[in-house]
Amino acid sequence: MRLLDEESIENIATGAAFFGAGGGGNPFLGKLMALEAIKKNGPVKLLDVSEIDDDDYFCPAAIMGAPAVMMEKIPKGDEFERVFTMLSQYTGHRFVGTFPMEAGGVNSMVPIALAASLGIPLVDCDGMGRAFPELQMVTFYLGGVAATPMVITDEKGNAGVIKTIDAKWAERLARVETVEMGGSATVALYPSSGAQIKQNGIRGIVTLCEQVGLRIRDAHLNPAKALAEILEVTNGHLIFEGKVIDVERRTERGFNVGDIKIDGFNDFQDQHLSVLIQNENLLALRNGKPLVMTPDLIEIVDADTLLPVTTEVIKYGKRVKVLATPADARWRTEAGIKTAGPRYFGFDYDYRPVEELVKEG
Amino acid sequence: MRLLDEESIENIATGAAFFGAGGGGNPFLGKLMALEAIKKNGPVKLLDVSEIDDDDYFCPAAIMGAPAVMMEKIPKGDEFERVFTMLSQYTGHRFVGTFPMEAGGVNSMVPIALAASLGIPLVDCDGMGRAFPELQMVTFYLGGVAATPMVITDEKGNAGVIKTIDAKWAERLARVETVEMGGSATVALYPSSGAQIKQNGIRGIVTLCEQVGLRIRDAHLNPAKALAEILEVTNGHLIFEGKVIDVERRTERGFNVGDIKIDGFNDFQDQHLSVLIQNENLLALRNGKPLVMTPDLIEIVDADTLLPVTTEVIKYGKRVKVLATPADARWRTEAGIKTAGPRYFGFDYDYRPVEELVKEG
Repeated sequence: MRLLDEESIENIATGAAFFGAGGGGNPFLGKLMALEAIKKNGPVKLLDVSEIDDDDYFCPAAIMGAPAVMMEKIPKGDEFERVFTMLSQYTGHRFVGTFPMEAGGVNSMVPIALAASLGIPLVDCDGMGRAFPELQMVTFYLGGVAATPMVITDEKGNAGVIKTIDAKWAERLARVETVEMGGSATVALYPSSGAQIKQNGIRGIVTLCEQVGLRIRDAHLNPAKALAEILEVTNGHLIFEGKVIDVERRTERGFNVGDIKIDGFNDFQDQHLSVLIQNENLLALRNGKPLVMTPDLIEIVDADTLLPVTTEVIKYGKRVKVLATPADARWRTEAGIKTAGPRYFGFDYDYRPVEELVKEG
Repeated sequence: MRLLDEESIENIATGAAFFGAGGGGNPFLGKLMALEAIKKNGPVKLLDVSEIDDDDYFCPAAIMGAPAVMMEKIPKGDEFERVFTMLSQYTGHRFVGTFPMEAGGVNSMVPIALAASLGIPLVDCDGMGRAFPELQMVTFYLGGVAATPMVITDEKGNAGVIKTIDAKWAERLARVETVEMGGSATVALYPSSGAQIKQNGIRGIVTLCEQVGLRIRDAHLNPAKALAEILEVTNGHLIFEGKVIDVERRTERGFNVGDIKIDGFNDFQDQHLSVLIQNENLLALRNGKPLVMTPDLIEIVDADTLLPVTTEVIKYGKRVKVLATPADARWRTEAGIKTAGPRYFGFDYDYRPVEELVKEG
């Protein structure tokens, strides 16, 4: 157990935006929410997964929807408690702690704000080890934990419990509600026992986010060293460096979808990278050839500060570095690839691990 | 109190389709559901509103969606009990009886099937005195009763509780779920105390449906007498007689919308009637001039048998009579007209009562 203070939260927000792989929301917005909550209620306890009881119940809370909408439709503040309380009442479980559903600038912060306001601990794990756009793209789903009963609410006070026959139906029903609620909504889902967390959680991700965030914070002191350390702790690859020359982005069925086009410089002169997105960066094509494929992570960061650049804010002219990180082993199983591999998103490629593709060059 | 047997149910289904004003679902389908349920569980008790206790709780159940979809997507049978049980659990109220939300071939039958399978009574009232397409178009809404918490489910077993800040948000969220569930869904909503029913229910509508249904059943013996009696018990008007020459009909945002065009014969030779629909018949224009406007009822019936013809089955070539009935006084208030009058549906007319328009000819 350790306490998360303001400094930890700043670093977690930055690192989470990195692992958000373009999605998971804007870290500036997320940070403000969490900082305000701990300013009001004091620091949050972070528990290692090994410290929780098998029989206790925990529940993640998150913001669902298009990140571009999320930025203009800031939560009122009582949504997190409402989804948690409603789900607790509906399931009959007292939730003794919370944890992030995904790593992301907003969605790593939502549970911290919730933990602060309810005075409960945060568990050092999540359900993706990155961000993904759909509700069934969760390691808990791969492990057989039900996504529902889940609760969804908006800033106006409308709310609903959703209980479905599988996680894909939860995604479908929650998605149409999210769109109707204006494009973003707050959800609590995958209520889980300690035993289920031990089996399915991506352990230590909050701490890993913090470590990466700390290195990004200090990158101005020695950018090359910071980058090398980030690649080391994430087991990652620097795959591109260049200038954004075009961003096609639209909101479609409640998602941000599009294509980020980058022309290379430095070691990548005369090369072109295209990053296809659905909330997250999903597929990187170098000179038209796949270089990184979902579920592996594609991280676009500022070329100088190494600050993560999320899909809803990336713009023409931005100078960026592009990194890639192997996904957690659970995402690389047959079930993981079926759930969140390239074909699920309509890309006509068989999944191949980033380390293989990078080696081929 | 009296018992509803097979014969009553047949007549109620027919009369309810008449009051459904084109909507509320197909009486043949509705009848089958209710008859099967009483065959299995015995007859259903019908209670007069005066017989219920103020402090008891009751809840309507209904099928929501486009009637054209409903016909091809027949409920599996356990949906009614599921919505009722879930809403009972969520609200903490034991529902001692049920009642129809609206008059309609299906939606007057759903509560009978439910009452039979749960062994609870049906209350002789509804919340419209007709059918309307949206969830806030209910006398209970006009009287300040909350539409939610409500429960929605599909035949696959997906379900949700919806709790909103007002009935229009309930309509919006339940509508997108209905569309996502395939275009029709089963709902339980407007949970009400006996006192709320006494204040807001349209009393005696089940019995009135039965009376009209009985006259339609016997219409072949003396059609003119049956018609005269129907007009008498409903305080109605015969406004047109003719042949359907065109039906424009499409499914839009989960509703059947369209225009039924009828060329007159007999007393209406050389006249033309156009009936605009959104699930229900909403506006009748004779030679381009309004003759009946929602919330007043427009009933299209077979010219010979007087059997109601609902919007999802009406076809080119059908010979019909068109009747009109004044809406319940609550629909003719400012709030009622704002909720379900012509302007709400996008028709550029101020509401005028059918009896005035008919008099002007």
